[in-house]
Amino acid sequence: MPARLIESLSTTEPLADLFSDSSVLQAMLDFESALARAEARLGILPQKAAAAIAAAAKAEGFDTAALARGILRAGTPGFPLVKMLTDRVREANAGAAGFVHWGATSQDVADTAIVLLLKRAQPVLESDLSRLDSALQRISAEHDDSVMLGRTLLQPAPPVTFGLKAAGWLAAIRRSRTSLSAAFSDALLLQFGGASGTLASLGEQGIAVGKALAEELDLEFPDAPWHTQRDRLAKLICACGVLTGSLGKMARDIALLMQGEVQEAAEPGGDGRGGSSTMPHKRNPIGCALTLAAAQRVPGMVATFLSAMVQEHERGVGGWQVEWPTIAGAIQSTGVAVASMAEVAEGLSVDTARMRANIEATRGAVFAEKATMLLGKKMGRGPAHKILEEAGRESRTQERHLAEVLAEKRELAGELDVEALNHLEVPEEYLGSAHEFRARLLSSGKAYRSSGKKD
Amino acid sequence: MPARLIESLSTTEPLADLFSDSSVLQAMLDFESALARAEARLGILPQKAAAAIAAAAKAEGFDTAALARGILRAGTPGFPLVKMLTDRVREANAGAAGFVHWGATSQDVADTAIVLLLKRAQPVLESDLSRLDSALQRISAEHDDSVMLGRTLLQPAPPVTFGLKAAGWLAAIRRSRTSLSAAFSDALLLQFGGASGTLASLGEQGIAVGKALAEELDLEFPDAPWHTQRDRLAKLICACGVLTGSLGKMARDIALLMQGEVQEAAEPGGDGRGGSSTMPHKRNPIGCALTLAAAQRVPGMVATFLSAMVQEHERGVGGWQVEWPTIAGAIQSTGVAVASMAEVAEGLSVDTARMRANIEATRGAVFAEKATMLLGKKMGRGPAHKILEEAGRESRTQERHLAEVLAEKRELAGELDVEALNHLEVPEEYLGSAHEFRARLLSSGKAYRSSGKKD
Amino acid sequence: MPARLIESLSTTEPLADLFSDSSVLQAMLDFESALARAEARLGILPQKAAAAIAAAAKAEGFDTAALARGILRAGTPGFPLVKMLTDRVREANAGAAGFVHWGATSQDVADTAIVLLLKRAQPVLESDLSRLDSALQRISAEHDDSVMLGRTLLQPAPPVTFGLKAAGWLAAIRRSRTSLSAAFSDALLLQFGGASGTLASLGEQGIAVGKALAEELDLEFPDAPWHTQRDRLAKLICACGVLTGSLGKMARDIALLMQGEVQEAAEPGGDGRGGSSTMPHKRNPIGCALTLAAAQRVPGMVATFLSAMVQEHERGVGGWQVEWPTIAGAIQSTGVAVASMAEVAEGLSVDTARMRANIEATRGAVFAEKATMLLGKKMGRGPAHKILEEAGRESRTQERHLAEVLAEKRELAGELDVEALNHLEVPEEYLGSAHEFRARLLSSGKAYRSSGKKD
Amino acid sequence: MPARLIESLSTTEPLADLFSDSSVLQAMLDFESALARAEARLGILPQKAAAAIAAAAKAEGFDTAALARGILRAGTPGFPLVKMLTDRVREANAGAAGFVHWGATSQDVADTAIVLLLKRAQPVLESDLSRLDSALQRISAEHDDSVMLGRTLLQPAPPVTFGLKAAGWLAAIRRSRTSLSAAFSDALLLQFGGASGTLASLGEQGIAVGKALAEELDLEFPDAPWHTQRDRLAKLICACGVLTGSLGKMARDIALLMQGEVQEAAEPGGDGRGGSSTMPHKRNPIGCALTLAAAQRVPGMVATFLSAMVQEHERGVGGWQVEWPTIAGAIQSTGVAVASMAEVAEGLSVDTARMRANIEATRGAVFAEKATMLLGKKMGRGPAHKILEEAGRESRTQERHLAEVLAEKRELAGELDVEALNHLEVPEEYLGSAHEFRARLLSSGKAYRSSGKKD
Repeated sequence: MPARLIESLSTTEPLADLFSDSSVLQAMLDFESALARAEARLGILPQKAAAAIAAAAKAEGFDTAALARGILRAGTPGFPLVKMLTDRVREANAGAAGFVHWGATSQDVADTAIVLLLKRAQPVLESDLSRLDSALQRISAEHDDSVMLGRTLLQPAPPVTFGLKAAGWLAAIRRSRTSLSAAFSDALLLQFGGASGTLASLGEQGIAVGKALAEELDLEFPDAPWHTQRDRLAKLICACGVLTGSLGKMARDIALLMQGEVQEAAEPGGDGRGGSSTMPHKRNPIGCALTLAAAQRVPGMVATFLSAMVQEHERGVGGWQVEWPTIAGAIQSTGVAVASMAEVAEGLSVDTARMRANIEATRGAVFAEKATMLLGKKMGRGPAHKILEEAGRESRTQERHLAEVLAEKRELAGELDVEALNHLEVPEEYLGSAHEFRARLLSSGKAYRSSGKKD
Repeated sequence: MPARLIESLSTTEPLADLFSDSSVLQAMLDFESALARAEARLGILPQKAAAAIAAAAKAEGFDTAALARGILRAGTPGFPLVKMLTDRVREANAGAAGFVHWGATSQDVADTAIVLLLKRAQPVLESDLSRLDSALQRISAEHDDSVMLGRTLLQPAPPVTFGLKAAGWLAAIRRSRTSLSAAFSDALLLQFGGASGTLASLGEQGIAVGKALAEELDLEFPDAPWHTQRDRLAKLICACGVLTGSLGKMARDIALLMQGEVQEAAEPGGDGRGGSSTMPHKRNPIGCALTLAAAQRVPGMVATFLSAMVQEHERGVGGWQVEWPTIAGAIQSTGVAVASMAEVAEGLSVDTARMRANIEATRGAVFAEKATMLLGKKMGRGPAHKILEEAGRESRTQERHLAEVLAEKRELAGELDVEALNHLEVPEEYLGSAHEFRARLLSSGKAYRSSGKKD
Repeated sequence: MPARLIESLSTTEPLADLFSDSSVLQAMLDFESALARAEARLGILPQKAAAAIAAAAKAEGFDTAALARGILRAGTPGFPLVKMLTDRVREANAGAAGFVHWGATSQDVADTAIVLLLKRAQPVLESDLSRLDSALQRISAEHDDSVMLGRTLLQPAPPVTFGLKAAGWLAAIRRSRTSLSAAFSDALLLQFGGASGTLASLGEQGIAVGKALAEELDLEFPDAPWHTQRDRLAKLICACGVLTGSLGKMARDIALLMQGEVQEAAEPGGDGRGGSSTMPHKRNPIGCALTLAAAQRVPGMVATFLSAMVQEHERGVGGWQVEWPTIAGAIQSTGVAVASMAEVAEGLSVDTARMRANIEATRGAVFAEKATMLLGKKMGRGPAHKILEEAGRESRTQERHLAEVLAEKRELAGELDVEALNHLEVPEEYLGSAHEFRARLLSSGKAYRSSGKKD
Repeated sequence: MPARLIESLSTTEPLADLFSDSSVLQAMLDFESALARAEARLGILPQKAAAAIAAAAKAEGFDTAALARGILRAGTPGFPLVKMLTDRVREANAGAAGFVHWGATSQDVADTAIVLLLKRAQPVLESDLSRLDSALQRISAEHDDSVMLGRTLLQPAPPVTFGLKAAGWLAAIRRSRTSLSAAFSDALLLQFGGASGTLASLGEQGIAVGKALAEELDLEFPDAPWHTQRDRLAKLICACGVLTGSLGKMARDIALLMQGEVQEAAEPGGDGRGGSSTMPHKRNPIGCALTLAAAQRVPGMVATFLSAMVQEHERGVGGWQVEWPTIAGAIQSTGVAVASMAEVAEGLSVDTARMRANIEATRGAVFAEKATMLLGKKMGRGPAHKILEEAGRESRTQERHLAEVLAEKRELAGELDVEALNHLEVPEEYLGSAHEFRARLLSSGKAYRSSGKKD
């Protein structure tokens, strides 16, 4: 099933498929058939019953519209699903019908289903993160020497390198990738607690069934059911929020660099990409826009999830019911942001000449600090500051370079020699620790390993 | 198309249909055919072209999956839609193809389409609000004399009436209904501005086309395009937030009254309603849970919408792109809350005997304030307070009624006569202005008229 | 008391004073003395007691640190305040002490105090809104003919006028001003309900006392106590959110126009304004930054307030306790945004030459749509579109004007005459309905009257 | 300085002090004096100048009101602070004045100051978390055998133990404590980048100065300045959000258990705690209310912080300016929640008799599942379900125990023997894996070590 149009800017296709009706339904059915298999292994129910349940637990042929209606009435996906599945099993094997969902409760199905979907979402995100990492690593390396304006509060500032800027993006994304990976690992747990979270209806066998079930589904078996302790999922949604924030920062930077008046970088174009129905000439920052949209939507979802953590006793009234669409929304939005930035980074065009020209266009204003420091060492920073303020004003009003204006100031004759003035506005000579910082940023993240992975 | 399972607890069926692919697509196509008709009326394009466009602008047969993919690439629904529609028109009438979308821009289609959907959402919400209003009015009238515990910080407090409580719910909901109606009226505006919001490509005829188009679509023509001024939509989403908050308060109250230990009220049950897969005896507060879920989701959507109002210049990068799913989500969540509370109110069962018994079970503790005031008038509030603290302690530890304990206190002999003590714990005699407040609440809202309606 | 440093970017001085300890304390004391006066008028307590209470109800000399500690322990401001006040009254008049707070509950003091503060906040906001309105009206009028680039998705688009842009800002702000004013009026209500909201301890006299108290405080007397119905305050906070969003949009636009590469407008500088400790040359968009910060903080506060509306029964556990800092934060953030934008608008410098130069620098690219429409009328839009795509590419790569490129295209000889080409890139000739839209925007808001004002 | 009244429910006293004017100011001054010392060590400035700067860098005597005004004008704390400090230094040592803030930028001061405050906040939170951990561990151990109702959707469900419930709270809080500790460690980094984040004005010595400065302040030196990469702080705020959510869940549970109709547990009372100005008998859930308030406020702050991560280029316009009050608010709210829950847990009174009585009061309804399973094994679950539905109805309407009703059903004669019926309603015999889950929850967290600590 395709992404619904109303959400078409908020998901990638693989993630839309992942949260589609058939996928969600099958995840719930997978829980039910795994439960039957696990219980059959332990002799709790007949192998034949388990086989009958497994045979019936196929999404095809279920009436998802009726199921959706049933869910809304029941207030939970589990109850109508079990009813539908039981009816199906009964048709094939009346005796097996009574064993469907044995010992489990609605929330067990629903929670485990979302976990199974999350488990499949992780490699989708991871794959795009990996593409993005490679592309940014390449960009940062290629542009270690590409000088460009620093910009603070959107005003020109002393130069940086594009390599440093890209390394800053990458290092933040790597940190979030590590957090996300750890959060996935922590969250990919079986939910299995029965009515009150004690597995009472399975008597002595609760934990044995739970472990077998976890094995069947290739999930971890948790210390205990987590029916109203939602912190692990919350942490995962938070990790999505932080990652999307860092991607949004990168997107905002690139959208700003793409402005007609700046033109230092541009997203890739291509068929249907960023088209405008009225302006054939435009190359729009579409990947950036999608990412910025995600960076504005996910925080609201995080807030919702966090405030919904306050779930009453052994099953919440309202808190739990917000989770499915919130989780799906957060994962899909994060996914569209990662995929968009991967595509943007892979195809980014960079105009280093324009970068240099934009520095040049400030006529040395961004080197005023440098001149202040140079003069300050000799005459004290206070007087130096004043001279530079005046020189800056003259430079702007007369549209002349700062070095030129300073060269004419007699009072500086002894303080700033011609040599120093000649070098004043050379960006490469005012980069401070830019190269070293870039190297440190990249190496600090070099050892990236999915921290959640077991060795 | 059914609600997607992942969102099955977050929408009613009519609203799921409203935001379904075919409905969203048709709303966009309605814009395009109305535009062609309007321009034909003004002689800007041939009547035949308009007819060909209108004929092609039917949702059936469009490949919505391809459209969703196109939207994601283009970053806007309008561009791929126009392309698809143009191809369709071309097949029937090559000459007409060039006139599709004449003078409009992508955002014009997208914004007007969402407005058309909102226009159809309003009566859906309004109808359930009306049911809810009637039901609460009836409940409040029936229970003007039903005394029950006041509860502050979830602790017993002097009695109220259930009629007053219901009137409080209703009056708040009426206020929000008025705000919502006004917000809808303000927001149901045509969007039509062309590339930069000046309708430049239509020369002198821009406003005339706009007015004709508004007429075709039965929408208001605004003072100017509102492509990056999103306050009217924001106000609508806020109105959803406030309404859902008031519904959530009612839902929380009812869920608390339904507790096994309280049992003063209960949601209606019925087929599939609130079923539990493990606990056949349970009657769960499902309508309340759905409403509380909505009351936790909408605030996050409001925050997202508000922060996305910061849209750059003549079309935002990211802000605009968050709106569709946020609006649809807010309307659907509000809809499920209103519908749920309407159903709950219509079928609410109330146990007035239990209400009285729960007062009785406090053994007069909630009348300590009354006794303090009575004594305070004679002996000053300070000493009265102390006596009551002591008496309260004795009442609790000895499990005797407060009046009984007080009756034995010799020091009170002259202060509280037998008559007063006999009446101390009669709830009906300690209701203050409950009846009058109830009457005022209901009459203040009586004059409810959809404030947005033109007379 | 000064704004605390940690919040120094989040409030103006008058609003910091308004929510300072002495101001908050005095507002609570004002409630208590007004209550005593009202009750004395009705003969409920002796005039002398009322006088003694009023005399003691002065903020000076209260130990606010101890009060803050007491509030945290009690979970409410009312309880420790009443205790402190009672102690003070007792010192002067032992008999009067017992009458302090007669018939009221903690929440009555706290809610009414915040309402009294809101009443004083309104004219502060209103005054800056009025300054902003005048300044924007002037700017819009002065720049009705100042052409500038339209910018969509931060890319150049057909021209607009700065007058239209400013009118768009102003009209949105006016709409929000009207909403805010109405929301203030709705919210400026006395809270007076006693323990459970029935005023039971005042017997028959509850409403009479309430009305007298409202009169004393110059507040409206509501239909009923609103102790757990917080929709009116919620609506006020939402109005702050929408207004701040519109101010944020204006701030983002101006910050973008101030970029070194754009330089079309600039905030006023002046003593200490936007200084940089390292870059003497900079003129930073400080007012814009403060406003954008507010536009990012208020949405989170709105979400908090809305989700806190779910308050249990007759007094909430947690919901109510979030309100004070949330309301104060929202009002102060809104205030700093309004004041900042007023200052920015009043001192905005606009560079119309640069605006024109920035259009010119696109070499006609933003008139491609115009050319397409012109050609489209003759050859159909499809072919025209293709020609313009090619011409646009040539214009960019050859750095020549679009009109020039088109002039050389032989196939257009019959389609576009020299005259049309000469006019192609004249911004004034491609403004569509810009002037009329501007006029409509300003006149629609002209009739601005504070809707909350009583006539 | 006391907590401001308006925020008195939102902070503890130590955290109010931590973010007070003098503390914030001193943290900024500590940066400046450490910078001077570091640079003097490296020979960049004279030891005497460093000494003069350090001598002047004492909060006493600064005019914080003027500083707050200056900050609002400058849009940053650093600029006016440096000016004030420089003036002070100049008075004592004119030559030293020029060396104040050498090589640093405003954001360096502000960011490092907040980090220094966070470093002092950590042990405050940690200490209360430790108290809470001990108290919950004790409670959980003491109540391993205390049976109580499970409650799902606020309806009675099969029994759990209070030990298990407390272990669930504790395990979640431990997980969040680990995350919080790691997040603090990641975030406690020096900020030092100069104007554009390259430390250009320090030439080759930037990193050496940075390392010396980090040493002076006992902070880590980061891979690179993080002026617009705010993910580490974001992660810390998220950790506050998740922790506060888990605390809120515990608080909601306890507030529900304290209800007059439930009375299974109660917060400690004590002087001024939870007092009610009108109801002397009440013992209010004040600690829970404060915690629930925090759990509703922090999510909004998290959303704000995350959406503010999108900071432009080398210094954001608006995003950065939201951080100070958001961080301080989140830390203080988290602190009040932790402290409140520690106090609640340490003094919690538990009524195990009432717990048992509340199970008893369901007359076996919560064992219907157990009966269904027992019967289901013999007759199949479908028929068993039907019998229990009927028996449940009879039990409720006739007010008799379920076991009694079942005993009379002839059709069950062969299925359920007397022995089984006698045991049906014994809570201890239907606890499933409750004890084991409790043990697992506690041991999984046993190995708690502050994960951020270096060994």
